[in-house]
Amino acid sequence: MPCQTSGELKLLVDEAKKYTKDGKVADYIPELGKANPGDLSIAIHYPDGRCISAGDIDKKITLQSISKVLSLALVLMERGFQYVFERVGMEPTGDPFNSIAKLETMAPAKPLNPMINAGALVVTHMIKGASVEDRLNRLLAFIRELADDSSIGYCEEVARSEFETANLNRSLCYFLKQHKIIIEDVETLLDLYTKQCAIEMNCLDLGRIGMIFAMDGKDPLTGKQIMPEDVARICKTFMVTCGMYNASGEFAIKIGIPAKSGVSGGILGAVPGKFGIGIFGPALDEKGNSVAGIKLLELLSRNYRLSMF
Amino acid sequence: MPCQTSGELKLLVDEAKKYTKDGKVADYIPELGKANPGDLSIAIHYPDGRCISAGDIDKKITLQSISKVLSLALVLMERGFQYVFERVGMEPTGDPFNSIAKLETMAPAKPLNPMINAGALVVTHMIKGASVEDRLNRLLAFIRELADDSSIGYCEEVARSEFETANLNRSLCYFLKQHKIIIEDVETLLDLYTKQCAIEMNCLDLGRIGMIFAMDGKDPLTGKQIMPEDVARICKTFMVTCGMYNASGEFAIKIGIPAKSGVSGGILGAVPGKFGIGIFGPALDEKGNSVAGIKLLELLSRNYRLSMF
Amino acid sequence: MPCQTSGELKLLVDEAKKYTKDGKVADYIPELGKANPGDLSIAIHYPDGRCISAGDIDKKITLQSISKVLSLALVLMERGFQYVFERVGMEPTGDPFNSIAKLETMAPAKPLNPMINAGALVVTHMIKGASVEDRLNRLLAFIRELADDSSIGYCEEVARSEFETANLNRSLCYFLKQHKIIIEDVETLLDLYTKQCAIEMNCLDLGRIGMIFAMDGKDPLTGKQIMPEDVARICKTFMVTCGMYNASGEFAIKIGIPAKSGVSGGILGAVPGKFGIGIFGPALDEKGNSVAGIKLLELLSRNYRLSMF
Amino acid sequence: MPCQTSGELKLLVDEAKKYTKDGKVADYIPELGKANPGDLSIAIHYPDGRCISAGDIDKKITLQSISKVLSLALVLMERGFQYVFERVGMEPTGDPFNSIAKLETMAPAKPLNPMINAGALVVTHMIKGASVEDRLNRLLAFIRELADDSSIGYCEEVARSEFETANLNRSLCYFLKQHKIIIEDVETLLDLYTKQCAIEMNCLDLGRIGMIFAMDGKDPLTGKQIMPEDVARICKTFMVTCGMYNASGEFAIKIGIPAKSGVSGGILGAVPGKFGIGIFGPALDEKGNSVAGIKLLELLSRNYRLSMF
Repeated sequence: MPCQTSGELKLLVDEAKKYTKDGKVADYIPELGKANPGDLSIAIHYPDGRCISAGDIDKKITLQSISKVLSLALVLMERGFQYVFERVGMEPTGDPFNSIAKLETMAPAKPLNPMINAGALVVTHMIKGASVEDRLNRLLAFIRELADDSSIGYCEEVARSEFETANLNRSLCYFLKQHKIIIEDVETLLDLYTKQCAIEMNCLDLGRIGMIFAMDGKDPLTGKQIMPEDVARICKTFMVTCGMYNASGEFAIKIGIPAKSGVSGGILGAVPGKFGIGIFGPALDEKGNSVAGIKLLELLSRNYRLSMF
Repeated sequence: MPCQTSGELKLLVDEAKKYTKDGKVADYIPELGKANPGDLSIAIHYPDGRCISAGDIDKKITLQSISKVLSLALVLMERGFQYVFERVGMEPTGDPFNSIAKLETMAPAKPLNPMINAGALVVTHMIKGASVEDRLNRLLAFIRELADDSSIGYCEEVARSEFETANLNRSLCYFLKQHKIIIEDVETLLDLYTKQCAIEMNCLDLGRIGMIFAMDGKDPLTGKQIMPEDVARICKTFMVTCGMYNASGEFAIKIGIPAKSGVSGGILGAVPGKFGIGIFGPALDEKGNSVAGIKLLELLSRNYRLSMF
Repeated sequence: MPCQTSGELKLLVDEAKKYTKDGKVADYIPELGKANPGDLSIAIHYPDGRCISAGDIDKKITLQSISKVLSLALVLMERGFQYVFERVGMEPTGDPFNSIAKLETMAPAKPLNPMINAGALVVTHMIKGASVEDRLNRLLAFIRELADDSSIGYCEEVARSEFETANLNRSLCYFLKQHKIIIEDVETLLDLYTKQCAIEMNCLDLGRIGMIFAMDGKDPLTGKQIMPEDVARICKTFMVTCGMYNASGEFAIKIGIPAKSGVSGGILGAVPGKFGIGIFGPALDEKGNSVAGIKLLELLSRNYRLSMF
Repeated sequence: MPCQTSGELKLLVDEAKKYTKDGKVADYIPELGKANPGDLSIAIHYPDGRCISAGDIDKKITLQSISKVLSLALVLMERGFQYVFERVGMEPTGDPFNSIAKLETMAPAKPLNPMINAGALVVTHMIKGASVEDRLNRLLAFIRELADDSSIGYCEEVARSEFETANLNRSLCYFLKQHKIIIEDVETLLDLYTKQCAIEMNCLDLGRIGMIFAMDGKDPLTGKQIMPEDVARICKTFMVTCGMYNASGEFAIKIGIPAKSGVSGGILGAVPGKFGIGIFGPALDEKGNSVAGIKLLELLSRNYRLSMF
C-alpha cells in the first residue's frame, strides 16, 4: 500500500522539488505569473476519508484545463453520450492543445477530443442554463459536491485577466461558430469558459475529486453516486489518452495514472479503486505540465506500482 | 490591336456566356445570392478615353476581394513598403483564400500575402484614420479618383450581411491579434473591412481603374500620377501571382493578364501599357472566380495575344 | 467472471457476426483480398491454461500491424528503453497510420509512436541480427515462445505481395533515412518488415500471446518471465493509446481493453490480470479495424465489465 | 537600353559581390561544397548575337533546379499540354521546394507545380525514350540547341554524388508511385533526374538559353523556332510564379524578371523581348537562391527598369 503517512510523502516531495528549477511559471496570464515557481504540494485522499499531504496544501489554485474534465462529466450527465460525441470527438491528437490547424484540415471541423481547447469550448458550450451565472452555478454545484467543499468559487481577477487575453480561444470559437458547432454568442461562451477555468480550490479538494473518480463516481462514505459509473469511466479514459496535453502518451507509459493538468500547475489524479491525488507545482515544462508534479507522480507510480497498465 | 468595337466584344461575350451554366452564384452572403447567374458584361477602357463594352454595364457590383488590391495600393502609399511588408508577406500559397492553417504552421504568423483573407485584413488594419468612417472615406476618395467617378459608395445591406456572417474572418483576426499582427479592436476592423468589400461600382468604373494600373498609376488624360509607379507595379505583380485565389497559377499560364477577382463575380484586369478591363459575371467556379469571366478573358488573351509572358 | 464456456462465447459471436456486412476485406494486398468477409472467430486464453473459443479457430491469419507490438517488445528487451525512445516517440496522433505529413511538420522527424507505420519501421530497423533471416528468426523465436507454438512461421506469398506494393512504406523509409533515423538499406528493411507482417498464426496463438501480456510478461504455468514486466506494461500502454489506429480513443472509451489490430482482420487483446483474446474477422471498417471484431469486444467488455477505466 | 558594355556590368557585379558573404555554399551535395563562395559572374546575351559579361564566365556550373524549366519545355513539346497538366499542376505553393506534406493533404496527390521537386520528378518521368541514356540524350540535344553549344554534357561525379544522397527525392518518388503518378522504376527515374540536374554549362550558355526564352522560343539569328511560342510563354510564366523557390513572390515584386535558380548558385533569366541572363554565384540564402545573384538582378532591374510589371 502506498504512502500511508504524510512523512513518507514529504520525502518524495523533497526529491521532486529539485526539478522545479527546470520549469517556468505560466506568464501569459498575468495572475498566474505571480505564483512561486519553487512551490510543490500534494494531497492524497483515500476512500475511507483519510488524507495525507505534504507542502503548503492550503494554497488556492485555479483549475484552468483541469476544469475540462469536470465540465465534460457534467455535460455527459446533462446531455447524454450521443449528443456530446456528435459535437466533440474521442481521439487523441499529436498537436498542441491550442492548435487550430486540424479543425481546418479534418472534415467535419469537429474538435478531435474534449481535452484540447477547441473541444473544451464545445463542451462548455453544452452546459445547460439560462445565463452564464446559471450555467456556472450548475458547474460549481457539481464541483462542490465532488470536492465536498461548499466554499468553492472562482477567482474574478484571473477570470477577467484570461477573458481579456483569450484571443486564441476567440479565434477557435469563431472558427467553430462558422462551422455551426458552436451556436451561441462567442463573448458569452468565453465569459463562462474563463470563469470555469478560474474556479479555485486547494490540493485537498483536488485529491477528494480524484478519489470520487477513482471510486467510479460514488462517494464511498455516503454511498451516493455523484456521477454515473460510465461518466467517471469515460472521463478517466480521456485523462489517460489526452489528459496531459501532447505529453499524454509519455505520461501513460511512464506513470500510467489517469490525470489532468492545468497551466496553473495543478494536477488531478485518480488511481482506480485506490485513491485520489491533488498536486500543485506552478513551474511548468514546455508542454504546459507541472514539471515537479510529473516527477512526483513518477516517483509515486514507481515506488508503489500504481500504473494501470 | 484588340477589340476596337463593342460589336466585336459582344461576340466574345456571347461565346463566353455559355459557360455561366457551369458556375454558381455565391450564396453564403445572402445579398450576393440574389444575382442573376446568367449575367456577363465587360467594359474595356483605353488610355485615350475610349471605352467599349458589352452586356448590361450599368449593373452595380460590390468589389469583395477586388477591394484587396485597392486597399493595398492605399496603404503602400500611406505607410511605405517596409512598414507594410513587415506585416504581410509576398509569397503565393497553394491554400484556399480563407485558410488559417498556415498562420499556425509557419513562424512568424505573418500572412503569406495580401490577397488571401488573413493578409487583406492586415492591410485594411493599416489604413490610416481616426475612425472607421474616416478610414473608409480615405479609401473611397482614392477609389473615386482611380475610377474618376465621385458617386462611388458602398452598399450598406451587403456590408451588414457580411459583417453578421464573418465568423471565419473573425477567427482569422483573433488569431492575428493573438500574435500581435493586428492590434485594434476586431469588430472595428471587421466593420471597416466588410464596408470595404461592399464598395460598389459598375464595369465601366472597374475598367477605368484597370486602365490606371495598366498605365503605371498615371491618368493619361490629366497626366496626374494617382499612385506612384512602384505601387502600381507591386499591385500588378500580386494580381499575377495571387490575384485569382488558388487558381492564380493556371490563370497566369492560360491568360497572363494581371487580374483580381471577387466572389461577387467581378474581375478587375490591367493589360500593361494597353488598357483596363472590368468584368461582371456572378456565376462562380469552385475556387470562387467568375466562370464565364475567366472564359471571356481567355478568349481575349488568345485572340489578341494579351499575355504578358 | 466472463465467459466460462465456449457456448456462451458462441452467442456473442453470432450477435457480432451480423456486423460483418458493414465492413470490407482489405484488397490492396491481393492475398488478403481472398479472405471470407463473413468470418468471425475468437479464442480466450486463461492463465490456468483453459481456453474457450467460437468460430473457425484453426484458420491462419497474418499478423500485419499486430506484429508492431511484438517487434516493439523485442527491441525494448534488446536495446533498452532509452535507445528505443530516442528513435521513436510515445505520443498518439490524430493522423492515419500511414501518414507522412507529420514527419515533415514536426521537428525532429522522429515518428510520433511505434504503432504508426513510420514508427513501426524504425522499430523493425532496431531488431538486432546479422541478416534479414537472422533478425526474422530472433523475432519468430520470441513470438513462438509467447504463443507456445513452435510451428509459427510466415507466409511467403503475403510477404512477397506486400513487398512489391509497399511504395508508401518505401516513401516513409527514405524520408526517415534522409533524416538519419533509419540508416540501413531500405529494401533490406522492407524485406524484413514485410516478412514480419506476414507472420501467421491462428486465434488460439493470438489469445495465448494476449494472456502473456495480461500476466505482465510471465508464463503463469512455467513461471518463466518471457519479457520483463516493464516491457509488457509499455506495450499494453501503447495498445490503449494507439493500438487501434486513429480509432484508438473511441476504442478506449467504449471498450477499454489493451488491443492491437491488423488489416488482416486480426485483433490481439489483453485484459490485465485476467486473460488474453485472439480474434479474426477480416471485414474491416474504414479505419482498418475488424468491424465485427470490435463489436464482439464491445459486447464482451459491456457484459463482463472488462474496461480498465 | 541596359548595360551596353561589360565595363558597366562589372561595376554592378562589384557592388553585388559584397553580399556573397551573407550566403553559404550548398554542402549537402559534396561536389557543390567545393565552390568558392566569393564567386559572382554574369553574361547577358542579346538577340543580335552580342554578349557582355563580367566575372569568371568560363567556370562550369551544374544546372540543378534550373534544369526543371528545360525538361518542362521538352515534355510540353513531346507530350502536349493536356497530357502534362493532367500529371502536374500550375499553382504556386508557399511550401519549401522539397516538401512532401501537401502531396498528402491535397487530393489528388498531384504535385502543385513543375518547379518543386515532386513536380519536376513527374516532368522528368515524362521525357520520352527507350533508356535513361536515350532520354538524357534527347534532353541534352534540346539544351545544346538552346545554348548553341554542342559541347554541353553532364558531370558524372555530381550526378553520382546526388544519386547516392537523393533519399528525400526517393521518398517523393515512392509516394507519387503509390498514387500512380509515377509508374516507372524509381531508381531508373532518379538516375535520369540526377544526371539532368548535373548537366553543366557556363554563364554564356545560360545567357543564350535565357535569350531564346526572351525571344519566344525563336533563334533570332537563324530564324528557327526552337520551341513553340506557347511553350516558351508557359515556361516564363512558371519562372515568374514559382521559379525562385518559395521566394518567388518577393522576387517577382522586387525584380520582376522570369528567372529560375539552382542550388549550384546558377540563375537563368529571360527579359521578354530584350535579352537573356546567365548568373553564377554559389553562396546561397536560406531559401536556396544565389544571394549575390539576386542582388545583381535587383540592381539590373532597378537601374534599367526591367520589371515586367
